[in-house]
Amino acid sequence: MKIMEMKYEGKAKKIFSTDVDDCSVMYFKDDATAFDGKKKGTIEEKGVFNNKIASEIFKYLEAGGIKTHFIERLSDREMAVKELEIIMVEVIVRNVAAGSFSKRMGIEEGTALKQTIVELSYKSDPLGDPMINDDYVFALGLATPEELTFMKEETLKVNKLMSDFFDARGIFLVDFKLEFGRHKGEILLGDEFTPDGCRLWDKKTGEKLDKDRFRRDLGNIEESYRDVMNRVLE
Amino acid sequence: MKIMEMKYEGKAKKIFSTDVDDCSVMYFKDDATAFDGKKKGTIEEKGVFNNKIASEIFKYLEAGGIKTHFIERLSDREMAVKELEIIMVEVIVRNVAAGSFSKRMGIEEGTALKQTIVELSYKSDPLGDPMINDDYVFALGLATPEELTFMKEETLKVNKLMSDFFDARGIFLVDFKLEFGRHKGEILLGDEFTPDGCRLWDKKTGEKLDKDRFRRDLGNIEESYRDVMNRVLE
Repeated sequence: MKIMEMKYEGKAKKIFSTDVDDCSVMYFKDDATAFDGKKKGTIEEKGVFNNKIASEIFKYLEAGGIKTHFIERLSDREMAVKELEIIMVEVIVRNVAAGSFSKRMGIEEGTALKQTIVELSYKSDPLGDPMINDDYVFALGLATPEELTFMKEETLKVNKLMSDFFDARGIFLVDFKLEFGRHKGEILLGDEFTPDGCRLWDKKTGEKLDKDRFRRDLGNIEESYRDVMNRVLE
Repeated sequence: MKIMEMKYEGKAKKIFSTDVDDCSVMYFKDDATAFDGKKKGTIEEKGVFNNKIASEIFKYLEAGGIKTHFIERLSDREMAVKELEIIMVEVIVRNVAAGSFSKRMGIEEGTALKQTIVELSYKSDPLGDPMINDDYVFALGLATPEELTFMKEETLKVNKLMSDFFDARGIFLVDFKLEFGRHKGEILLGDEFTPDGCRLWDKKTGEKLDKDRFRRDLGNIEESYRDVMNRVLE
């Protein structure tokens, strides 16, 4: 397989087209950003860790009945994925209060919620991924009601699967965001599932094992990503 | 009826208890604030205009089948209302793009939407009334699913009634927010419907006839509120 031109460069990844039909290559960078790009940095080896983590999780999710864009891990930093038409809606799950939710609502991190929250944001770096709701999705034509229903149902399935997955590895899955894309009449889970896009707290110590270590300058960033990788690959 | 102590002072109104059972007095101030209280000012006679506007609209909505907290207008600035247990969820309707929606989504004011948007915000001055969704309402115990469904249905009925009402008066109803409260096992429309809490554009000239004149220093603020009052009382 030959890598052709770069189709997209995001904050943590690049996407390249290839000479193989319906196959792109996702390249995992070490770059890290936070607060809508206001904070920038590098987490050494993050790309390597995240590629391994995401690959393992995609395989696990596929085995659990979730259709994803994952084809295979190609190298340390490269993953082969199907070509998606990205849906510009991020789906976020919150199992307990944390992060932007806590800040916006004035509710202390770690506070229990009466139920799991599913929320949506508009995928837009310049606008800072603003929160939206179902009506926004339809009013702006971002997805159809059937598509959105499917995405939310898949997200709740992923929450169950991933909560169990991390629980068995001594980690509490606090929250995460997913992205989906259209592919030959189906909707597939796209993007990645890594400590860049979720919150993971050690069940025993409460220690944060995710990008909050970078956002909040908590130190041991690389070590935490490596720890998550090791537990994911257990 | 005797006015007793002040129960609440908001940005534009005060609420007093009275010696009459289940009767409060809502007092309309001339104070105006915008941008979460960062901008402060006075709109002369606004309290008088808004009391007249809200009273007329409550009567119209009651006639249209909407149950409200309105009892009667008592004086220039005072309205008698039933005592509500306020639900901390504001319900917003957007018929076209404007205001915070336009800013947050990067969509020009006046842009048509494929459908009307209903959105929710958490009623909290210190937090700046952050946007929430249905799951937030349940996760935080702000209202039950039955209550929220009822509030949304009532809001869409109000949108139809008020769009027709203003349309007949040469005004386009762009967006508005409503507040509800619990009262003897029912949910009643509370607060007010005035140019402080909605956007009204003259159908012929496109001129703004609402609080945006204050927010954006467009001048003729008092004249616009008086114009709306006169058309409402037509």
